Amino acid sequence: MQKKAVVLLSGGVDSTTTLAFAKIEGFEIYALSFHYGQRNIFEVEQAKKIAKFFGVKEHLILSIDLKAIGGSALTSEKISLPKNRKLTDIGREIPSTYVPARNTIFLAYALAWAETIGAEDIFIGVNAIDSSGYPDCRLTYIKAFEQLCNLATKAAVEGKLQFKIRTPLINLSKAEIIKKGMELGVDFSLTHSCYDPLPDGKACGKCDSCQLRLKGFKEAGFHDPIRYVNSTNNTN
Amino acid sequence: MQKKAVVLLSGGVDSTTTLAFAKIEGFEIYALSFHYGQRNIFEVEQAKKIAKFFGVKEHLILSIDLKAIGGSALTSEKISLPKNRKLTDIGREIPSTYVPARNTIFLAYALAWAETIGAEDIFIGVNAIDSSGYPDCRLTYIKAFEQLCNLATKAAVEGKLQFKIRTPLINLSKAEIIKKGMELGVDFSLTHSCYDPLPDGKACGKCDSCQLRLKGFKEAGFHDPIRYVNSTNNTN
Repeated sequence: MQKKAVVLLSGGVDSTTTLAFAKIEGFEIYALSFHYGQRNIFEVEQAKKIAKFFGVKEHLILSIDLKAIGGSALTSEKISLPKNRKLTDIGREIPSTYVPARNTIFLAYALAWAETIGAEDIFIGVNAIDSSGYPDCRLTYIKAFEQLCNLATKAAVEGKLQFKIRTPLINLSKAEIIKKGMELGVDFSLTHSCYDPLPDGKACGKCDSCQLRLKGFKEAGFHDPIRYVNSTNNTN
Repeated sequence: MQKKAVVLLSGGVDSTTTLAFAKIEGFEIYALSFHYGQRNIFEVEQAKKIAKFFGVKEHLILSIDLKAIGGSALTSEKISLPKNRKLTDIGREIPSTYVPARNTIFLAYALAWAETIGAEDIFIGVNAIDSSGYPDCRLTYIKAFEQLCNLATKAAVEGKLQFKIRTPLINLSKAEIIKKGMELGVDFSLTHSCYDPLPDGKACGKCDSCQLRLKGFKEAGFHDPIRYVNSTNNTN
């Protein structure tokens, strides 16, 4: 029987390439996305198209209210979103776009679903290079969560499942992720990275996430196929 | 300034007594409850009354859809709920009322809220004695989650907060919890434990949770003030 994997899918470059990694390994894919009150309202729509593109077995979209908790520029209008930062400053400090315990919440749901469907592998597109410096994207955190999975669940305690948190991108630069995604057949025109897109869906080109994406495409030597507010952002 | 604590509050005997412990320690209480698709639709209403009784600073009620994930007799009608089990059988095996990764999901939200409001202490009413044998109620699991908190979050990584998962009931029997609750002024008529109450709110008296509760009150030598379907259940 084909082995199952749960893949956290935000609809960005990293999670989409991660899904492609899981697919190439032969897993039956259970993609998991969240409406969590994020500024980018297009993210989940793009995730749906990506899930369809890859022919996933199931795409579960959960609505969770992180706006009620706040504490981040992505979920609270009270906190301003950094734009036009120097690339060398990105990742040096944890920025206001950090969402408290977001990956812990996402992984907790992924674990619940994995246990229910009998999947041992949970894929998440975290990477420590060319990242925003979020603490819950580091390998040390991921390893602690993996250990937790095998203490938290009935299936693990009874020896039926041994959970693994799979992070195929952890040591790749953004350019390497994009190159690898291209090799694996990812259609990057379906992906969306901007923290704060315009109402027409165009990416701002100025937030940390757009800047890291644009730098990645440039270094990888590919044209970024998505639409930006200012087309000069995207010069490849 | 008064220190803040997040308290997970289901509205049962354990979480309510845990709240009383946090209160007596002098914390400003931020109570957190969930509509998660549980069979007991009265639970959250009782939690509201308890939060009011204790004069908490804030009571956050989040709706999260664990029904969409299923895998438990508490969240799926497809899985039958054990009733009338022998007391000596309860806790020997993990029963079908186990909800995949429930405490991991609850604690993840509690962590997000704690970080946002600047609380270091997160209280949860798990206990290993007179329990249903859930893996995510054991101290080894709780310690692993505590360790995770301090890797997962900006506030911990930056040295601003050191999270502690507080489990004042971990080594108490149900009778001891009830005695302690009485000492601390808990009004147990506000609590609700039944996994599957009747539409009029009466507890079934037969599920594991009712049985553990009734045994606890009996051993503690107190009358259980809530209403049961069959009043002979409650003979003290």
